[in-house]
Amino acid sequence: MNAGADTAHGQSKPQVTFWPEGDRVAVSPEATLLDAAKLAGVDLASPCGGDGLCGKCRLVVRQGNVSAQPTSLLSREEIRSGYVLGCQTIVTGDVEVEVPPESRPAAAQILIDLDAQRFRALHPVAETVEGHSGALTCKLYLELSPASLDDSLSDQSRLFREIRSRHPAPIMQLGLKVLKDLPRLLRGAGWKVTVTLGWRGGTLEVLQVEPGDTSARNFGVAVDVGTSTVVTHLLDLNAVKRLDAEAAYNSQRQWGDTVIRRIFHAATPAGLDELQKSVVGDINRMISVLAERNHVALHDITAITCAGNTTMIHLLLGLDPGPIRKAPYVAASTSAPPVRAVEVGIQINPRGLLYTVPNIGGWVGGDITAGILSVGLRRSDAVQMLVDIGTNGEIAIGNRDWTITCSSSAGPAFEGAGVRNGMKAMHGAIERVEIGPGDAVHFRTVGGTPPRGICGSGLIDLVAGLRAAGFIDRSGHLVPGSTRRIRESDGALEFVLVPDSRSETGKDIVVTQADLSNLLSAKAAIYSGMQVLARAIGLDFRQVERVYIAGGFGNYLDREKAIAIGLIPDLPTEKIRFVGNTSIHGADLGLLSVDAWQEMNAIAEAVTYYDLINYPDYYDEFLAARFIPHTDLSQFPSVRQPRDVEARV
Amino acid sequence: MNAGADTAHGQSKPQVTFWPEGDRVAVSPEATLLDAAKLAGVDLASPCGGDGLCGKCRLVVRQGNVSAQPTSLLSREEIRSGYVLGCQTIVTGDVEVEVPPESRPAAAQILIDLDAQRFRALHPVAETVEGHSGALTCKLYLELSPASLDDSLSDQSRLFREIRSRHPAPIMQLGLKVLKDLPRLLRGAGWKVTVTLGWRGGTLEVLQVEPGDTSARNFGVAVDVGTSTVVTHLLDLNAVKRLDAEAAYNSQRQWGDTVIRRIFHAATPAGLDELQKSVVGDINRMISVLAERNHVALHDITAITCAGNTTMIHLLLGLDPGPIRKAPYVAASTSAPPVRAVEVGIQINPRGLLYTVPNIGGWVGGDITAGILSVGLRRSDAVQMLVDIGTNGEIAIGNRDWTITCSSSAGPAFEGAGVRNGMKAMHGAIERVEIGPGDAVHFRTVGGTPPRGICGSGLIDLVAGLRAAGFIDRSGHLVPGSTRRIRESDGALEFVLVPDSRSETGKDIVVTQADLSNLLSAKAAIYSGMQVLARAIGLDFRQVERVYIAGGFGNYLDREKAIAIGLIPDLPTEKIRFVGNTSIHGADLGLLSVDAWQEMNAIAEAVTYYDLINYPDYYDEFLAARFIPHTDLSQFPSVRQPRDVEARV
Repeated sequence: MNAGADTAHGQSKPQVTFWPEGDRVAVSPEATLLDAAKLAGVDLASPCGGDGLCGKCRLVVRQGNVSAQPTSLLSREEIRSGYVLGCQTIVTGDVEVEVPPESRPAAAQILIDLDAQRFRALHPVAETVEGHSGALTCKLYLELSPASLDDSLSDQSRLFREIRSRHPAPIMQLGLKVLKDLPRLLRGAGWKVTVTLGWRGGTLEVLQVEPGDTSARNFGVAVDVGTSTVVTHLLDLNAVKRLDAEAAYNSQRQWGDTVIRRIFHAATPAGLDELQKSVVGDINRMISVLAERNHVALHDITAITCAGNTTMIHLLLGLDPGPIRKAPYVAASTSAPPVRAVEVGIQINPRGLLYTVPNIGGWVGGDITAGILSVGLRRSDAVQMLVDIGTNGEIAIGNRDWTITCSSSAGPAFEGAGVRNGMKAMHGAIERVEIGPGDAVHFRTVGGTPPRGICGSGLIDLVAGLRAAGFIDRSGHLVPGSTRRIRESDGALEFVLVPDSRSETGKDIVVTQADLSNLLSAKAAIYSGMQVLARAIGLDFRQVERVYIAGGFGNYLDREKAIAIGLIPDLPTEKIRFVGNTSIHGADLGLLSVDAWQEMNAIAEAVTYYDLINYPDYYDEFLAARFIPHTDLSQFPSVRQPRDVEARV
Repeated sequence: MNAGADTAHGQSKPQVTFWPEGDRVAVSPEATLLDAAKLAGVDLASPCGGDGLCGKCRLVVRQGNVSAQPTSLLSREEIRSGYVLGCQTIVTGDVEVEVPPESRPAAAQILIDLDAQRFRALHPVAETVEGHSGALTCKLYLELSPASLDDSLSDQSRLFREIRSRHPAPIMQLGLKVLKDLPRLLRGAGWKVTVTLGWRGGTLEVLQVEPGDTSARNFGVAVDVGTSTVVTHLLDLNAVKRLDAEAAYNSQRQWGDTVIRRIFHAATPAGLDELQKSVVGDINRMISVLAERNHVALHDITAITCAGNTTMIHLLLGLDPGPIRKAPYVAASTSAPPVRAVEVGIQINPRGLLYTVPNIGGWVGGDITAGILSVGLRRSDAVQMLVDIGTNGEIAIGNRDWTITCSSSAGPAFEGAGVRNGMKAMHGAIERVEIGPGDAVHFRTVGGTPPRGICGSGLIDLVAGLRAAGFIDRSGHLVPGSTRRIRESDGALEFVLVPDSRSETGKDIVVTQADLSNLLSAKAAIYSGMQVLARAIGLDFRQVERVYIAGGFGNYLDREKAIAIGLIPDLPTEKIRFVGNTSIHGADLGLLSVDAWQEMNAIAEAVTYYDLINYPDYYDEFLAARFIPHTDLSQFPSVRQPRDVEARV
């Protein structure tokens, strides 16, 4: 808690105190409560970046002077109780505010995201890289023959000769720093040393030389840099296995929830630097936790692979993402060279390398490259499809001969953003919902704890359930009078999923008409994207042998319900496979195997990007897909229409 | 001139004042006058590094308190006049000393060493690299097609595509720094940019990208890092020609004249760092002068090649040369990777690369690699020989199929060190000497200025002349009474070449018995080295088609006199060719042509090092060669013995 020192010297600066912590900060005139929270180090949710759009930075004013902009994101009841949006409220004098629990970003409250915990069981890495070609970095223990008059090769050449006798290395590199230490080190170690080698393009670099045999300990980190969540794996590069996982929200959220908002922030002075430091901080915190929990020294982590969408990778490397935003959507780099991890601030071995999975284009990133590798799309004769539902929806279709991809602006509704009570699949998130009989609502939360909100899989269940019960119509509108749970609030309809008495927050958990509209837009974007991409190459869904659904929520998704709402095509369920986070799985594979890494480079080179805008009737297809399941019911023959209920409307 | 501020505060610290400048400095107890000179920034010759061996750091004590060690390097006369050796004299109280002109290192007094001036006319570079393969760094002006929806490659890939269409580049590299600037730069420049490319091993790096067309200006620097002299060339990499040259003494001399002394100093705390900074300072000063004189911006100098002996290159790069000194004489690196020039402190374009010519072994350096390239030894079917007479004498013999080299510890006598009035071939150096008729001495100095000392070619003439006149015998001993010019001084004989009345220093220019002994040891080391190397492979000198004599003094050497004293074999003079500084010529060629650079790498790999110690009778051969011309006169059939004079002895 800050002492009141500021009052003594700065009468003119209003003070803001945040409760329950009591953190106090003096702010400049025109500062908002959100600005004050940032200054005070108070962690406040702000997915829209302070534009007054998401309604997440809710605060309760206990006493003092503020000037709040009108907003439709708070109910009259809430406004009467003192609720304000932090970003829309200017501090005009000393003020005391309370931070309600639901305004805390959930990341601060969990140790391990369940995505990560659950993912540990999936994708047994060792199996996938059987007969693997060696990791991107490896350690070799060498017992050099000491120099003699008959064999007076230089230290460097002696080292290279021994390495080459054990390892294919057409072009070898060595930094001046390593070379400088070499004479003393070799002699001090009695010519018995361990070299760490790292692939850089087509060359092999001697990253470090250590005395004695340290080859037993060589670790790597794989990261999925998601727009909303960052998942980090610790891998044992010798044992070719994943040891542990961590996940956290991407701290860049404070500047906005979407890729576009991050690009806007990157264009402000210091914005790019702030974004880079922010995500690097997230990664460092996770690495630190993983290293400590698994008794691994940071020094023994010699490589890190990162997969993410093109913008996330730009921000990680400190590259300007600006041109990605506007046509022709060009990246600075889709295949950045490996760099020393420390160059971007990542704290592993100071000579360790950071590899970014090559991107396919401005709007199809390395996460999809990794996904295509992970599901083996380019090893199959039959046509397969990969759909990655994250903050955007990226789609790939193809086989070993050809592959095309597109990106659909699905938005982050299935990640809980743009939905009043939406949240990630963490403790307290409603992940399964059944409606009926009647208007009874059965739900299950992640971790079985009292409900705090609803996550992606819960939302799909909910929409399917609402439709089956006839509580919404085919266009997703709530049907007034169909159940007592539908009520009007501030002039709009909402469905009460959990009453305040049963929720952890002490407030009703609802889904609003606006939420439903966002969800239907998101699912329409994904379905129409799949449809248009298939049609663009003259294919029908029936010709697709398998559809892989990737994404954080994928593991709990109910295939039939996802079909019922028209999110994915109406195919036999055995053709649909949920594959979880394929981005990090690809990053794992590439780290553990140079062959896999090279395959990702080949994928990024070979895959063609298709811009949905090029398809003549794309927007019509999108609108048709906004219905449940679709305007054209013949595309969903297996989906039973709730005729009985329909009749009631 | 320093003010006397030190006296006011530090009564206990003795002060030393150097005249004629009047520079004053306060020193600690036990400091020598040489220490004081270094502190005061007074440039004092000290080729032995302060061990009291060379007798060059002579000072005249005007008044004050000193304690001088006894030395045989000063005559009684000189001691009576107040002469001391700076390094052997401890300051015991305030003292005023005068720095006589002969104690100033000559480098401070010249703008361009004549080595460099004269060398401009030699080795027309453009001719040698006809049909050349392109320089180590080159600039390409590119007009990129702007990104469009049909061609939305990333900035990096667009750049690489265009480069690859113009330039062979199997593996391309790009630093994060360049990548970060790329999006803004390309768009700001309307997609018209100049890239600078540099070869690194088998890969091509994009060193920098500049807006617009700057391709007309691309320069490089080639350096011969000699133990005593550093020669620097400025080259226009587009025009494939040398623009200008500079030379200076290697400032590392202050820590000793020989490679061994430098290695010793490198082993002291901070010694390696001092040595590196010192030679880098020399190179930077020369680059700065060359750039200014030729109106070249440092920014437009994108590469520097350096050739030198293995120790010099170690010191330049900051690598520990320690192990080179002792058997098995192993270098840290004989083929160091290119590094950013700024990494070692060299001030050219901050992204520019420093390339060091690969060394052959610990005692045969990149200067010989460069020499072998320069004379085309490995392009000839016939057997040829290269002898580089510098601070050491390195010898190579071979043809396109095989080449062996050795190093003979000739010492720097022919560079003027270890010789009382020896000096480099600069203004005032006696470069030609004729004796007779009688004991008349005719000489010519460099620049025609009054004589200050005698350089290598003058010493060879002198020894030949002394022998022809019968003033020395076959073993090099001065013959007392054979001429009035021979006198005794401090119990040893010396020959007065120039009386004090005609010298610039106002002192006699003499050659002492000790000087003659050093010169004969040096010439014996070189001749016996050549002989043993040829014999080691079963060859006779008559089977050698050509002998190339390289080295700073080579251009003025009188072939017949060099044969007369037994420095080089008694071959028809058309078989002997003086080729000057082949080290810098090779550095020039390698900079201007990637093919030449690669040929030097192949040379360093292919050439075999032969240690003279391995030859059973090497020491006997050396002793036999200490006579004039040799013990075995049958090896020098063309040399007329001065029988008439001999009779007088």
